[in-house]
Amino acid sequence: MATTTNSSGQFIASAAFLEQWQGHRRLTRRIIDAFPEDQLFSHSVGGMRSFGEMVMEMLSMAAPMVRGVATGNWNTSWDRDPIAKDEMLRRWDDATTEMNELWAQISAERFRETMTAFGQYEDVAHNLILYVVDNEVHHRGQGYVYLRSLGIEPPPFYER
Amino acid sequence: MATTTNSSGQFIASAAFLEQWQGHRRLTRRIIDAFPEDQLFSHSVGGMRSFGEMVMEMLSMAAPMVRGVATGNWNTSWDRDPIAKDEMLRRWDDATTEMNELWAQISAERFRETMTAFGQYEDVAHNLILYVVDNEVHHRGQGYVYLRSLGIEPPPFYER
Repeated sequence: MATTTNSSGQFIASAAFLEQWQGHRRLTRRIIDAFPEDQLFSHSVGGMRSFGEMVMEMLSMAAPMVRGVATGNWNTSWDRDPIAKDEMLRRWDDATTEMNELWAQISAERFRETMTAFGQYEDVAHNLILYVVDNEVHHRGQGYVYLRSLGIEPPPFYER
Repeated sequence: MATTTNSSGQFIASAAFLEQWQGHRRLTRRIIDAFPEDQLFSHSVGGMRSFGEMVMEMLSMAAPMVRGVATGNWNTSWDRDPIAKDEMLRRWDDATTEMNELWAQISAERFRETMTAFGQYEDVAHNLILYVVDNEVHHRGQGYVYLRSLGIEPPPFYER
């Protein structure tokens, strides 16, 4: 039988995980920027939501999730109304700054605590955070299809 | 100034991360299964690869990455030729079993080591593994668009 050495050991440290996430966020920012402004809230494939609506969802989850885990303040905006691309990118950059500032205040114990995000999603903090990252990667992948279907070549997935 | 308490502390433990990944893999398996067999290697949006080709890529990366990190054996198959859906699901389940067996042998120190995966991708082990998971989530998101464009409602993203 194989020797079990590590099932409860560390997979990744806090700072290294944030670096990965911000790498994803830099790529998502480039996908937003690659969208023609007049297609951001109108183009769709298969009757799905526009990429603009998906990005509004990301904005309502990323910094608000980090803020909630760090401070217990779970306020966020569920507003999905169209905004200009410049304003979207500005909000993206503001979120990046806020996330970097708050992240280092979260203790390893806090990442393991079970909590209720936004008054409705109960899970361990690291799972809640992974959900937000995975949701971004999932919808950004859909943004890639939208761009391709508009004849636009997206930036490569491996460039962060 | 905010107090920095944790930038080098743990974000997530090894066992908890594998549980998240296997949850993703259960969802991806359901997306594969939802595809009509005759569309798996032929349907495309925007000139992109078929979902079947993307799944063959996932199969060439997931268990082989865990095996490589655990044992240093970096052999894998880059074969992307079409196979039957049943065979694809069988290979998926075999990979799940192998990953569960090998994962517990990987030490926390090993996850932090820099290594060259498949003879060409150099990075810290936890980043190499995250890349494989993110690549799966990215392409599965594209599989969602493909299914919707075929008029098929995919299983919800939050069900793992």
